Amino acid sequence: MYPCKSNFQNVLLMVADDGGFEMGAYLNKICQAPNLDKLAKKSLIFSNAFTSVSSCSPSRSAILTGLPAHQNGMYGLHQGVHHFNSFDKIHSLPKLLQKHNIRTGIIGKKHVGPKQVYSFDFEETEENNSILQVGRNITKIKLLVRKFLQQNQSQPFFLYVGFHDPHRCGHTHPEYGNFCEKFGNGEPGMGLIPDWEPIYYQPDQLKVPYFVQDTVAAHEDIAAQYTTISRLDQGVGLVLKELENAGVLENTLVMYTSDNGIPFPSGRTNFYDPGMAEPFLLSSPRKDDRHNEVTYSMTSLLDIVPTVLDWFNVSYPEGSELTGISLLPLLKQEPKEDKRAVFGSHNHHEVTMYYPMRVIRTKRYKLIHNMNYKMPFPIDQDFYLSQSFQDLLNRTQSKQPLFWYKTLQDYYYRSEWELYDLKYDPNESRNLAEKSSYKAVLTDLKQQLTQWQVKTLDPWICSPHGVLENQGLFKDHPSCLPLHNEL
Amino acid sequence: MYPCKSNFQNVLLMVADDGGFEMGAYLNKICQAPNLDKLAKKSLIFSNAFTSVSSCSPSRSAILTGLPAHQNGMYGLHQGVHHFNSFDKIHSLPKLLQKHNIRTGIIGKKHVGPKQVYSFDFEETEENNSILQVGRNITKIKLLVRKFLQQNQSQPFFLYVGFHDPHRCGHTHPEYGNFCEKFGNGEPGMGLIPDWEPIYYQPDQLKVPYFVQDTVAAHEDIAAQYTTISRLDQGVGLVLKELENAGVLENTLVMYTSDNGIPFPSGRTNFYDPGMAEPFLLSSPRKDDRHNEVTYSMTSLLDIVPTVLDWFNVSYPEGSELTGISLLPLLKQEPKEDKRAVFGSHNHHEVTMYYPMRVIRTKRYKLIHNMNYKMPFPIDQDFYLSQSFQDLLNRTQSKQPLFWYKTLQDYYYRSEWELYDLKYDPNESRNLAEKSSYKAVLTDLKQQLTQWQVKTLDPWICSPHGVLENQGLFKDHPSCLPLHNEL
Ligand SMILES: [Ca+2]
Ligand SMILES: [Ca+2]
Ligand SMILES: [Mg+2]
Ligand SMILES: [Mg+2]
Repeated sequence: MYPCKSNFQNVLLMVADDGGFEMGAYLNKICQAPNLDKLAKKSLIFSNAFTSVSSCSPSRSAILTGLPAHQNGMYGLHQGVHHFNSFDKIHSLPKLLQKHNIRTGIIGKKHVGPKQVYSFDFEETEENNSILQVGRNITKIKLLVRKFLQQNQSQPFFLYVGFHDPHRCGHTHPEYGNFCEKFGNGEPGMGLIPDWEPIYYQPDQLKVPYFVQDTVAAHEDIAAQYTTISRLDQGVGLVLKELENAGVLENTLVMYTSDNGIPFPSGRTNFYDPGMAEPFLLSSPRKDDRHNEVTYSMTSLLDIVPTVLDWFNVSYPEGSELTGISLLPLLKQEPKEDKRAVFGSHNHHEVTMYYPMRVIRTKRYKLIHNMNYKMPFPIDQDFYLSQSFQDLLNRTQSKQPLFWYKTLQDYYYRSEWELYDLKYDPNESRNLAEKSSYKAVLTDLKQQLTQWQVKTLDPWICSPHGVLENQGLFKDHPSCLPLHNEL
Repeated sequence: MYPCKSNFQNVLLMVADDGGFEMGAYLNKICQAPNLDKLAKKSLIFSNAFTSVSSCSPSRSAILTGLPAHQNGMYGLHQGVHHFNSFDKIHSLPKLLQKHNIRTGIIGKKHVGPKQVYSFDFEETEENNSILQVGRNITKIKLLVRKFLQQNQSQPFFLYVGFHDPHRCGHTHPEYGNFCEKFGNGEPGMGLIPDWEPIYYQPDQLKVPYFVQDTVAAHEDIAAQYTTISRLDQGVGLVLKELENAGVLENTLVMYTSDNGIPFPSGRTNFYDPGMAEPFLLSSPRKDDRHNEVTYSMTSLLDIVPTVLDWFNVSYPEGSELTGISLLPLLKQEPKEDKRAVFGSHNHHEVTMYYPMRVIRTKRYKLIHNMNYKMPFPIDQDFYLSQSFQDLLNRTQSKQPLFWYKTLQDYYYRSEWELYDLKYDPNESRNLAEKSSYKAVLTDLKQQLTQWQVKTLDPWICSPHGVLENQGLFKDHPSCLPLHNEL
């Protein structure tokens, strides 16, 4: 029953910008996201998917290369004075696919470089458009998807749609509201996005997540975020409808995820679960694959490249190796036992925000290594101006109650090692790294983390206690030599 | 009396790699450098010249753009996993000169990027040669200079010769000795550089500088460095001879300097004077200019671009501004009063070595701002393996006397602000930042430093106490907003 032109097996990857679990499929009972929920019904729903880095450009580079940020070179944000870039010789998914006659397209937020590494056949991004238009105007996005599909009838395709929603807006475009929740709503000066029907929320009727303080300011912030989710959600619906109208949806593997955690405390730029855990929907067009089921399999966004390569039956070039795995087998059955650990690597976000962290997360435990731990955890320009962060700052300064699960002091000053037993402490409130009863766990996790760092050629592998020597006399046996710096 | 083909006014800029004051002209009575001394006799000898950053790629980017590292984007080393680059739209000296029909050449160490920013008409660098050959084989360098001059008879030229001497070698090529002092000496396996006559030193006959410990290990290290200086020095002689033979020396402004401090404690990667002060010789071909005289004028390597542009009568593009000044007026006379301050900006060296510092230095005072001061000062892979640093580590570990002016603990842990009164404390041993009698000095220096950071668009201007907001509502009045992070 497939129309003739849809005989190809395609991939659509939709990435939200700072999106979280704001949908019924992930048990949020207030935020309306009917299109995402509808997609979830046709998807394998991942309940343990994690980004390898909770920062925009680094995460997108990892999604598109299958390599953690420290291995692909994107140590921080790509734009402006940050101007981080991946190494010139890194393989990216679009380039790998192009070699196999697969047409590649990107619509929306790109935010990675250099251009020769991340090059798509069809590019409509912030590099040649206004980011608001190409990333938040869902009518424009819809038409660009249509254009891509129309140009593309003789090849299978990989299409990457980078929504800029629900990223904050207060930092760059405050005139549109904290989350650009007014952009395109038809009010005077806001422009009109014809396809968008905003959904509004009463701040006092919301529940804030456990990691956000329970105050009026935070409720209002979340309400704005939810309204913006309605644009994202309807955008997802429009994109899928375009594929359906073109007769290709039935032959397309659809993925939906987000690059990093939501821009709230413990979220974006953090490796706490609010920063690291991501929604992930994998919708297979094959009838006998799992649909509307939840998988608990430990999954990394580093698995996206192997999954797409597997789908297209393209192999990764010899001489290098990915640590991710294809998720396609999960579409058949849930693994009996899952001892898999996922890993993460954060270095900068903004260039001034040096806070290298490494993380290993298993189903039960999380271990975070904070290398610059004597300095306060840095706050980005965008989050700093948010109503939620300002509220925490002001309350702390005026010694009012925070209605929060932490103090700002706790948030700023972290231990070098943070170990959490997520079974008993899902909110990551009790650091067990010094507890003798967890010594064996700690040792094992450290060892696995180090092995991953070795395998992924982590330049920070010896930080902050030692110096990595890997040239000259140490060429064949790279070593961490001690600094005796009393850390 | 100029030969016909030398009617052009040219510039030769020779840059040593981690070179210091190892020559008679700078009162070193042991290290033999007759060619540099001979050049000094024909030069204005700068006794107060300072690099704006004591790290290789950042300094070279500043030398070639006239912009401090934080303004041109080269926040750390260019090679390998560090892969720092200047911004794509930065103006570099060779590109500015090319537009005015001046032929540009680079021979030796380049170590900056991206290519489109730093592009010379003639390039023989580590990008298309072995760095040892193009940077240390002075016979090869001589022949490349000859080739450049032969190709270049109808245009004035700007030639940049980047010696790799006297950079350390123990990290990458230990087989050639600590400073590659054996490379090309004709011994078995060392190869032969026909033009080089090595000069050898007795370690126990040397004096170590005040910032290097007075131990056998350090004496040996300095002896090796001095032998390598003989190759650099003879290379300088060979290059000048090529210009002389080509009949262009008499029409060429010659400069000699070094990119950063010597690779010893308090040197390279530091803003103490051993890291920041550089040799600088400016040899004018004009008879009535100052020769064999010392200038005490406060000078920055950021002055090189304005000087070369002034020499060629080329103006800097509108819309941006350099903070350096032309040094050509100094060739006429010493300024009566010199209240000038010079500035510096260090961020990374290796990508893992985040230690942002800003510095202002006047004739009398120095103020250093260490932004990541709660963490230990980082040690680079190259210096770590040096005999001198290993000696400090071992002595500290085994509680032997150091014979040094600091402890390793002092060296690692620095105050956020370091203020030195160089008149009474040229060795920068007594931090006066907390002294009430220096409060007015501190305030004044901080103010000047901030003004320079504003003028040079420093992304770190609010670090580590605040967040810079300069978009959206803050577009017209960039502000440092407080983090209240208890630093
Ligand atoms: Ca993001
Ligand atoms: Ca250097
Ligand atoms: Mg972002
Ligand atoms: Mg260097």
